[in-house]
Amino acid sequence: MIEKLSKAKSKLISSLSVKKHRSENRLFVAEGIKMLQETIESNFKIKYVVYNDDKELPISSDDYEVFTTDDVGMKKISNLKSAPGVLTIIEIPDYELEISDLKSKLTMAVDDIQDPGNLGTMLRICDWFGIENLICSKNSADVYNPKVIQASMGAFLRVKIHYVDLPEFIKNYKLETGQITYGTFLEGESIYQAKLPQAALFVLGNEGNGISDEVSEFLDEKIFIPPYQRPEQHSESLNISIAAGIIASEFRRNPLPNLQ
Amino acid sequence: MIEKLSKAKSKLISSLSVKKHRSENRLFVAEGIKMLQETIESNFKIKYVVYNDDKELPISSDDYEVFTTDDVGMKKISNLKSAPGVLTIIEIPDYELEISDLKSKLTMAVDDIQDPGNLGTMLRICDWFGIENLICSKNSADVYNPKVIQASMGAFLRVKIHYVDLPEFIKNYKLETGQITYGTFLEGESIYQAKLPQAALFVLGNEGNGISDEVSEFLDEKIFIPPYQRPEQHSESLNISIAAGIIASEFRRNPLPNLQ
Repeated sequence: MIEKLSKAKSKLISSLSVKKHRSENRLFVAEGIKMLQETIESNFKIKYVVYNDDKELPISSDDYEVFTTDDVGMKKISNLKSAPGVLTIIEIPDYELEISDLKSKLTMAVDDIQDPGNLGTMLRICDWFGIENLICSKNSADVYNPKVIQASMGAFLRVKIHYVDLPEFIKNYKLETGQITYGTFLEGESIYQAKLPQAALFVLGNEGNGISDEVSEFLDEKIFIPPYQRPEQHSESLNISIAAGIIASEFRRNPLPNLQ
Repeated sequence: MIEKLSKAKSKLISSLSVKKHRSENRLFVAEGIKMLQETIESNFKIKYVVYNDDKELPISSDDYEVFTTDDVGMKKISNLKSAPGVLTIIEIPDYELEISDLKSKLTMAVDDIQDPGNLGTMLRICDWFGIENLICSKNSADVYNPKVIQASMGAFLRVKIHYVDLPEFIKNYKLETGQITYGTFLEGESIYQAKLPQAALFVLGNEGNGISDEVSEFLDEKIFIPPYQRPEQHSESLNISIAAGIIASEFRRNPLPNLQ
């Protein structure tokens, strides 16, 4: 017999929409049946599963607790406009970042990305292009924000996210790996001309301000996605996650032998 | 002396958040001072400008009417969480689509794109990569939806959007231009291997269902952005606007001579 969701648990779960409470409880929420299935298959540790009692969900496990609730209860804990009827409450993983593990790998970093949708999309890009680690500056959006988790379409299960002091990290990255660090700048070299190695770090800047001076100081190469030439005026910039996608694709498009 | 915004005009402007009213009045709304400036410099016809009376905005013109309102009035007509204080009400342009104009050009088409943010981002991609025309199937999101307009960052002023019967359009496009039509499919050829001409049409599908059978029937070439190979599972797909960005970049990355 599956228990009804208690008031106390409901309160805890809805508090997880706020970063402070996620950090205190080391928990976050993913919504939808697909997220639940993917999480079960992953190494992530599920704490609770809550589902709408109008659903038949043959879920039970010794590893986590399962509760049901009704439409009203679901609305209280869901972060989506139309609650999909299944919430998975997951433990925030504790990744250890060893810079030496980034040797021979392609790594993406973001300098103060603010929009949760962009961060979620970037996780999908990393996942698609085999970028195992996403390095975020401390002031970047929180990856366990429900909007990031939903936008990532499960990519948060496969890409490791690390929050670091970004200038300090890049300094150490260069020392320890000897690999080249790239950043996108308006005055950079055309990415189509650049010879991009398979093992490197590339940094994307904030939506409005680009890459900060503190970070750019440590970058070896400035790259740029050139606009197609035509007489009229064009947009000042591409959306930052579009830029991330194009750059990741450029790094991966030439199947050079990997330096393992 | 600038007039206060009347109740009737306020009602008209806030009704423009709904497609039906935009179509009836042939008007749409763009928010923010930058949008106003860019619209003034464009060929678009401004009908009204409304700004918050706590701002000093030295705007006057014989071409359009200017009104002021207060915070409460602004909130009523703004579509944004925090109203930027300036709204431009613009006439919907009447583009004529001559397929012969698409000869020697790169053109993007979308088959039932639903998310306004995706459509706005695609407009920015077209703008950046010199794609002058974006062809939308009739069931795609409305480009004059305020969310599309804001996400486009002014790109709607430079990229022409046409709503068409997409299968019919592609049939005629092939007949009239003789150019190749491309679509993204999971079973397609790697885009990194494909030889992409500067003059062509490429189609992107719906967020969930991809390209419809009715459309794919008329496409010459199936292309695909390959994921980077690694043992673990990866995401099922890239976000559709990320795919659009990567494909546009691939078409433009080799500066071949244009077939004029």
